[in-house]
Amino acid sequence: MEAKNLKPLVAEPGIQEILRAGEIVNPFINATPVLTCSSFNALLDSSLFFKCENFQKAGSFKIRGASHALALLGNTVKTKGVCTHSSGNHAQALSLAAKMMGFNAHIVMPNNSANVKIDAVHGYGGKITFCNPTLQDREATLKVVQKKTGATLIHPFNDYSIIAGQATAALELITEHNTLDYIIAPVGGGGLLSGTILAARYFSPNTKVIGAEPAQANDAFLSFQMKCLVPSVNPQTIADGLRTSLGTLTWPIIKNGASDVLTASESTIVSAMKLIWERMKILVEPSGVLPFAVMLENQSMFKGKKVGLIISGGNIDLNKIPWCEDQSTK
Amino acid sequence: MEAKNLKPLVAEPGIQEILRAGEIVNPFINATPVLTCSSFNALLDSSLFFKCENFQKAGSFKIRGASHALALLGNTVKTKGVCTHSSGNHAQALSLAAKMMGFNAHIVMPNNSANVKIDAVHGYGGKITFCNPTLQDREATLKVVQKKTGATLIHPFNDYSIIAGQATAALELITEHNTLDYIIAPVGGGGLLSGTILAARYFSPNTKVIGAEPAQANDAFLSFQMKCLVPSVNPQTIADGLRTSLGTLTWPIIKNGASDVLTASESTIVSAMKLIWERMKILVEPSGVLPFAVMLENQSMFKGKKVGLIISGGNIDLNKIPWCEDQSTK
Repeated sequence: MEAKNLKPLVAEPGIQEILRAGEIVNPFINATPVLTCSSFNALLDSSLFFKCENFQKAGSFKIRGASHALALLGNTVKTKGVCTHSSGNHAQALSLAAKMMGFNAHIVMPNNSANVKIDAVHGYGGKITFCNPTLQDREATLKVVQKKTGATLIHPFNDYSIIAGQATAALELITEHNTLDYIIAPVGGGGLLSGTILAARYFSPNTKVIGAEPAQANDAFLSFQMKCLVPSVNPQTIADGLRTSLGTLTWPIIKNGASDVLTASESTIVSAMKLIWERMKILVEPSGVLPFAVMLENQSMFKGKKVGLIISGGNIDLNKIPWCEDQSTK
Repeated sequence: MEAKNLKPLVAEPGIQEILRAGEIVNPFINATPVLTCSSFNALLDSSLFFKCENFQKAGSFKIRGASHALALLGNTVKTKGVCTHSSGNHAQALSLAAKMMGFNAHIVMPNNSANVKIDAVHGYGGKITFCNPTLQDREATLKVVQKKTGATLIHPFNDYSIIAGQATAALELITEHNTLDYIIAPVGGGGLLSGTILAARYFSPNTKVIGAEPAQANDAFLSFQMKCLVPSVNPQTIADGLRTSLGTLTWPIIKNGASDVLTASESTIVSAMKLIWERMKILVEPSGVLPFAVMLENQSMFKGKKVGLIISGGNIDLNKIPWCEDQSTK
């Protein structure tokens, strides 16, 4: 691939951009497995195919978008580097992608972030600037960092280069299993869901794509029902990756391309998580179990169907396992 | 394979018996993956290869020995069936193997067994007889069941057919990675360790095999040091699969074939378990982390070496995660 031809995407990625994203991210990601579970197939009378991005580098699908966006930036900005504000998986993924590709990475993190997340960003070489845990201070601090360093902002989801990168998870799933009736992806800001929609549109047009969201952070559900962008207001959910509002670039793709947005209650999310851990012997974070959780709450819809589930990540603080109630006080 | 030529092994399995065991068990088991973890390789300055029997059917390697032993029994005893006493992975594995191969399975379980284990045996169609939780009552109850049903006893480890079946885990590991310096296997009764020793002897003679045992259930360690069979006395370890004493058939193979037996403390076992969950995103039961735990306690020994670790199982009660101290009272 000729580096000189690469530049950040400024329009909705098409078939060529997504195929090229698959080639671009390939050296920087793990080839994650698609797992099946006979007891879940029996329980739901469906055929479930779990695309396990919990086994992805830095523990989530986010490395796909981050490495794709960085590859499209070109070499000239490597020293000035890239920046973002994030307390979660995007911070880790951007730090690791930057390390692998020779960029500096500047991460603005709330000063109440979990130690395990701070350590991970440090471990990947990200340079952390702490801020107060409000969106206002996050954005203000990021502006200061940007001004000081000249770093390029890499938004966690509202960026076509990121969306094309996230699309490669569904692209791989479809390549391995090309007769799926549905693919279900978690939806927070919508980067993963919109990428999944585009991948299905171009490579498996008979597959319907569904967004999965906590009932207590149901902005995508409301937006989809009302056909207008409803922001997330004070979301209270254990699925910490899904508290964000949709973006101006992800929302139109979801509005036009999703076949549905389904929700699950907090108790179903925790039950789904425990079931997956227990039966599949894999660690999935709360946000990552949403596709399975919405299947549990909508079983008749999926009876007899082949369903792909994008398990978005596996980063969880093992000292705060939700069914171990007393731990949070320790 | 001609069923009429099959009969239970009455002598130490040789190269032909182990190769044949691999073919016999193949339809009844999962092809478990060998996983690597770059952060552990960096941490220990070694190359680690995890043979993940936590992804095995019924959640542990035990299905290998059970399905092999049943296949060698032949069809005439299917109705009278097979029996054992076990509160753990052997009970589940024997029940599932029996179900797959058309045998009746009679399981004697202590009346204080975890519900999750009772449910699993029930789910696989095993017929449970409860007894008091003493070895004496387990054996007495088993004799009653045997007399009533005419079932054939399948011992969890002290049986050459079982040993040959367990050898197939290391056989697969060696087939995939044929230049290992060490293979480390947990040791309880010694079925897995003795099978691993035989597989390495025949298929990778330059690979040394090490047993891994809790320091608080160190009968194999003491036996190996003193070169005489020392029974397990009142073992107090979280690694519930490794509390058993060695058997009269497994001990000679271990005495002559192990290069060492290493131990790990309870706190290292718990740390190792948490580390594996956190970094590899897989669920491993306490007994299954012993190979990694002894590496953590003996790092200089493995520096620069290629080490295979047999992760024996993933069956754990998620309501009793060891670092969630307060759960056990709920």
